[in-house]
Amino acid sequence: MIEPSRLRSRPTMDDVAAVAGVSRGTVSRVLNGGHNVSRQALAAVERAISKTGYVVNQHARSLVTQRSGSVAFILSEPQDKLFEDPNFNNLLRGCTQVLAEHDITLLLTVAATGEDRQRIGRWVTAGHVDGALLISNHLGSPLIAELKERGLPFVVCGRPLGQERDVTYVASDDRDGARQMTEHLRSTGRRRIAIITGPLDTPGGVDRLAGYREIVGHGDPELIATGDYTRASGEEAMARLLRQAPDLDAVFVCSDLMAAGAITTLQRAGRRVPEDVAVGGFDDNKIATTTTPLLTTIRQPWARQSAEMVRLLLAHIDGEEHSAVILPTDLVVRDSA
Amino acid sequence: MIEPSRLRSRPTMDDVAAVAGVSRGTVSRVLNGGHNVSRQALAAVERAISKTGYVVNQHARSLVTQRSGSVAFILSEPQDKLFEDPNFNNLLRGCTQVLAEHDITLLLTVAATGEDRQRIGRWVTAGHVDGALLISNHLGSPLIAELKERGLPFVVCGRPLGQERDVTYVASDDRDGARQMTEHLRSTGRRRIAIITGPLDTPGGVDRLAGYREIVGHGDPELIATGDYTRASGEEAMARLLRQAPDLDAVFVCSDLMAAGAITTLQRAGRRVPEDVAVGGFDDNKIATTTTPLLTTIRQPWARQSAEMVRLLLAHIDGEEHSAVILPTDLVVRDSA
Repeated sequence: MIEPSRLRSRPTMDDVAAVAGVSRGTVSRVLNGGHNVSRQALAAVERAISKTGYVVNQHARSLVTQRSGSVAFILSEPQDKLFEDPNFNNLLRGCTQVLAEHDITLLLTVAATGEDRQRIGRWVTAGHVDGALLISNHLGSPLIAELKERGLPFVVCGRPLGQERDVTYVASDDRDGARQMTEHLRSTGRRRIAIITGPLDTPGGVDRLAGYREIVGHGDPELIATGDYTRASGEEAMARLLRQAPDLDAVFVCSDLMAAGAITTLQRAGRRVPEDVAVGGFDDNKIATTTTPLLTTIRQPWARQSAEMVRLLLAHIDGEEHSAVILPTDLVVRDSA
Repeated sequence: MIEPSRLRSRPTMDDVAAVAGVSRGTVSRVLNGGHNVSRQALAAVERAISKTGYVVNQHARSLVTQRSGSVAFILSEPQDKLFEDPNFNNLLRGCTQVLAEHDITLLLTVAATGEDRQRIGRWVTAGHVDGALLISNHLGSPLIAELKERGLPFVVCGRPLGQERDVTYVASDDRDGARQMTEHLRSTGRRRIAIITGPLDTPGGVDRLAGYREIVGHGDPELIATGDYTRASGEEAMARLLRQAPDLDAVFVCSDLMAAGAITTLQRAGRRVPEDVAVGGFDDNKIATTTTPLLTTIRQPWARQSAEMVRLLLAHIDGEEHSAVILPTDLVVRDSA
């Protein structure tokens, strides 16, 4: 005996067939496109589906259509970063909106540890999603290799270090943005320009440092410090720079969140921003307009970046080859430099 | 002809059978538990799986096991709230951790609009997840009805207004927390105690107001204002209260984020906190220790709440009947009241 409440809550194909007065095979043909079904039977099945509240079992359905109607947004960072850095909110909002226009659900999952990445890699390649957006990839992360091996379409946000030729990605022009900011600092007469980079296993870490070096030359090692894109790391890196090079007169901080931390450290140390030390950021997210003084920074084109990621992913799901899009960045001059 | 790159990227059960030198049926029996398979064949298939990199097609697999190894965390709020209010980070962190201990992946999805809720309702009831955690439900949301109808196990965070008897939920004792805070404000000699409630279609909105009224009586309508749990709404509601009842000497603000907004408004209006106006919050999230003065508030047991939600959901998935857990809340006295 089937438990009555279960029967009520999950009508089956047989229930639909019984209500419609047709065979189970007819119901199945209707569900799979309605070929070889009379107009009369089609109408009866549609009424019966509506009456019983039958929902197609997507496990079975997906064996036919191979589509789930959803996409994973995989963040390879500790969860707290998701909430601390407005960049992720910007990307998530953009991707969610564009996917919703295609009636596709976005599922966010946080792959903070190696174990998480393994479990999530298994789940996304098991047919529950049609593709994945990989956010904040670090060099050597096993996720890219796993998804490639399993044949799941995916798009990487930012340049996939060492895998540019066979992975689809959307990046801002990190190097050019860094060049623009460093040139701007030079143009305002600064001569001891320090840099706080992101982690050097991320594209934002290496490419923004490379752009800085194109302008200042190899750079005095005492003027270079590395953070991990958190506010606290910006505070700490700024303190290190002040010890190493107390005569610095500008600092290019490779994310707005770290720049907010650096400004705090400078002000606590009695340095005026920008009079004593000019500060430039990178991102142009909402933090840039909440610092005192307002942050001069490099604008990443958040909405376009999200839209391009979704566009390339949908094309990839439809069988197109991999490709890359690199979007221009712009200098936004406010008060800090 | 199968495209070679696809063949390479997605080995099939036939590939496993060929490498193992057994029939497809034997591979299938191994994948479904290894019954009626010789020890020798079992070992050969396991080696072949490892060699080919075969992954079980979960669409087919789920028809047998009925488990996907994942749970949806559905937030019925605009996405920006996810990032503005630390409560969601607290719940998400707790649920992710406890689920990871059970090797289950958490998938976050934001159901901001009615369309989102429909699309997400279809997706989660199509077998891609084993259950759902519903966060921030408003009265009349169609999601609860949809999940009930489709028979998907789910747990609601907070009291499901009007559906307490047939829905599994985990709630903090909102009413008692509100009583404790209002009593505390009275005990420090305050006599004109205002309240900024949450939306009155949420349990936190109605239950905290009810607790406040248990202490002050029905309450002067001029002392009551309603916000929507955003910081901006706390600022605005406080401004309304100051116009309506300029003689107020305390305010119980029903979330820490709104309380931070209320403090900003009071200080801009030249009212000292707590000397002129005492301010009490509700939540005890990280905002409570970043306000000036530090916020006196009601502690919600975030970690326990997450753990209980996961525990009840897993029990529900295993077939247990619905149940409810209500967790105690505690007064935390800091500097604002």
